[in-house]
Amino acid sequence: MSDILGFSAIREAAARIAPHICRTPVLRCVRLEEQLEAEVFFKCENFQEMGAFKLRGASNAIFSLPEADVSKGVATHSSGNHGTAVALAAKRRGVPACVVMPENASAYKKRAVAEYGAHIIYCESTQQGREAALASYVQKTGAALVHPYNDPVVMAGQGTAALELHEDVPDLQLILAPVGGGGLLSGTAVATRALRPDCKVMGVEPLAADDAWRSLKTGHIETVPQPDTIADGLRATLGVLTFAVIRDEADGILRVSEEAIIAAMRFVWERMKIIIEPSSAVVVAALQERLVEVKGRRVGVILTGGNVDLDHLPWR
Amino acid sequence: MSDILGFSAIREAAARIAPHICRTPVLRCVRLEEQLEAEVFFKCENFQEMGAFKLRGASNAIFSLPEADVSKGVATHSSGNHGTAVALAAKRRGVPACVVMPENASAYKKRAVAEYGAHIIYCESTQQGREAALASYVQKTGAALVHPYNDPVVMAGQGTAALELHEDVPDLQLILAPVGGGGLLSGTAVATRALRPDCKVMGVEPLAADDAWRSLKTGHIETVPQPDTIADGLRATLGVLTFAVIRDEADGILRVSEEAIIAAMRFVWERMKIIIEPSSAVVVAALQERLVEVKGRRVGVILTGGNVDLDHLPWR
Repeated sequence: MSDILGFSAIREAAARIAPHICRTPVLRCVRLEEQLEAEVFFKCENFQEMGAFKLRGASNAIFSLPEADVSKGVATHSSGNHGTAVALAAKRRGVPACVVMPENASAYKKRAVAEYGAHIIYCESTQQGREAALASYVQKTGAALVHPYNDPVVMAGQGTAALELHEDVPDLQLILAPVGGGGLLSGTAVATRALRPDCKVMGVEPLAADDAWRSLKTGHIETVPQPDTIADGLRATLGVLTFAVIRDEADGILRVSEEAIIAAMRFVWERMKIIIEPSSAVVVAALQERLVEVKGRRVGVILTGGNVDLDHLPWR
Repeated sequence: MSDILGFSAIREAAARIAPHICRTPVLRCVRLEEQLEAEVFFKCENFQEMGAFKLRGASNAIFSLPEADVSKGVATHSSGNHGTAVALAAKRRGVPACVVMPENASAYKKRAVAEYGAHIIYCESTQQGREAALASYVQKTGAALVHPYNDPVVMAGQGTAALELHEDVPDLQLILAPVGGGGLLSGTAVATRALRPDCKVMGVEPLAADDAWRSLKTGHIETVPQPDTIADGLRATLGVLTFAVIRDEADGILRVSEEAIIAAMRFVWERMKIIIEPSSAVVVAALQERLVEVKGRRVGVILTGGNVDLDHLPWR
């Protein structure tokens, strides 16, 4: 078991965040199951409030902070769902939130963060620009930082999705989860080892942002300088904590092409009638590309989010 | 109680079609409930196999036909979901299906019907053209006709959606259902009268295709010559049987603009992360336009389908 993240932390997270998240449903898809000759259970975090699993980790972080630490508010940097999740969780806790966003973030994402009442600080769209703006804000205000993934309390929150999936669907033999910064995959792996030790856990990432695959191969954290993928939630690089947990607890990383991601996303929209974002579609792409043998098996997949700008669809 | 359609027929339909349809889930939407200060329960027939409630009526019709009547196959005319439903139900029963479609039907709909193995006959895009082609086919082959709505066995099948909704959500005070030809609204009204007599049942249709509203007003079946609405599933005119049941059992018809339909459709996609077609969106539009007072009430709405051509979205 990982020293960084234990299953008890995931159990505690589940109890802590229960009033603040929704227990998302598990759906199936006749067509896909016929194609694969397998049972496939979709954990629909696209139905999570604010549209992504990120609310789990952000809620666990923000609601576990002592009153004294949270009274000056919370802050993070994000161009995506994590910022919205922090905004909503802070609103629920009744403390101010600040989200540092790159100037070139999409209008859609800016609107979502603003809608939940967070203060937005715009910065240059480099990692250094983000971190400098965030550090400056934190120093000035004393706000508490909420890391998007490289923090055990965030990883534990993300692990609650797999916890619920195992509770709702016994005897899974394989779980696929997208991997970006690695918070979700870490939590999924630890929850699965505890609840269903025989079940394999694999991460899926875009070929164009395959830092996790490379990192596991070399044994060091590798980065992909400018990951050019439509799966914008999966451009982040593993952190030292998520890397260690994934290396020790997960069973491997699969990689999918941009074409396969877009085709899988469209398949899910057309066949399952649910809206998923490209970062969610990677797991379906891995199944459809037959990157892992699932025939006759019982497979869980985590659909991480459904925040898509309907004015800019990839098949336009 | 209606002489045309009794509740026992809906109960029988539910038992008959149970192996051939899926029991669709009921979802809620925090955002909409906050806006309306009401509880709203969405019966998600967009998740029905082939993507619409039409499979219920088609399955009830096709599986209740005696072997002798069905052995030459089944036939219908449709430019939309009913054709696909007949194709799938016939495939399940193991008999051939023929669907008469107007030449100018969308490639998307043609593909769906063909995919389930039905034979397609193309005709002129007039009501007369359709009926002539269908009559000629039936005379030649002896196939059994399956009407899209004006048949008690079809109406009974459609009523099973409301039956399930009442079973899953007790104490509803109002149900809204789209009304096109009136099969769904008829079945919904009869099921509701039997199971929850105090619950109101209202139909919703586009202003641009408000034949049901006009018909109830004048007491005769009225037609709208060329209904110009994006809600292509609601262009049909009430039949004599559906008109009689709706007149006697439903509590009224609401009408919504094209703008309200498109806005409601986009709202559901963005907030609920589910794909609904314009014909489903009319019920959400009626709520958002405050056409009926729902504050503090418990409301059921039927989302009838999710078959949308993703290459042609109304906000493009």
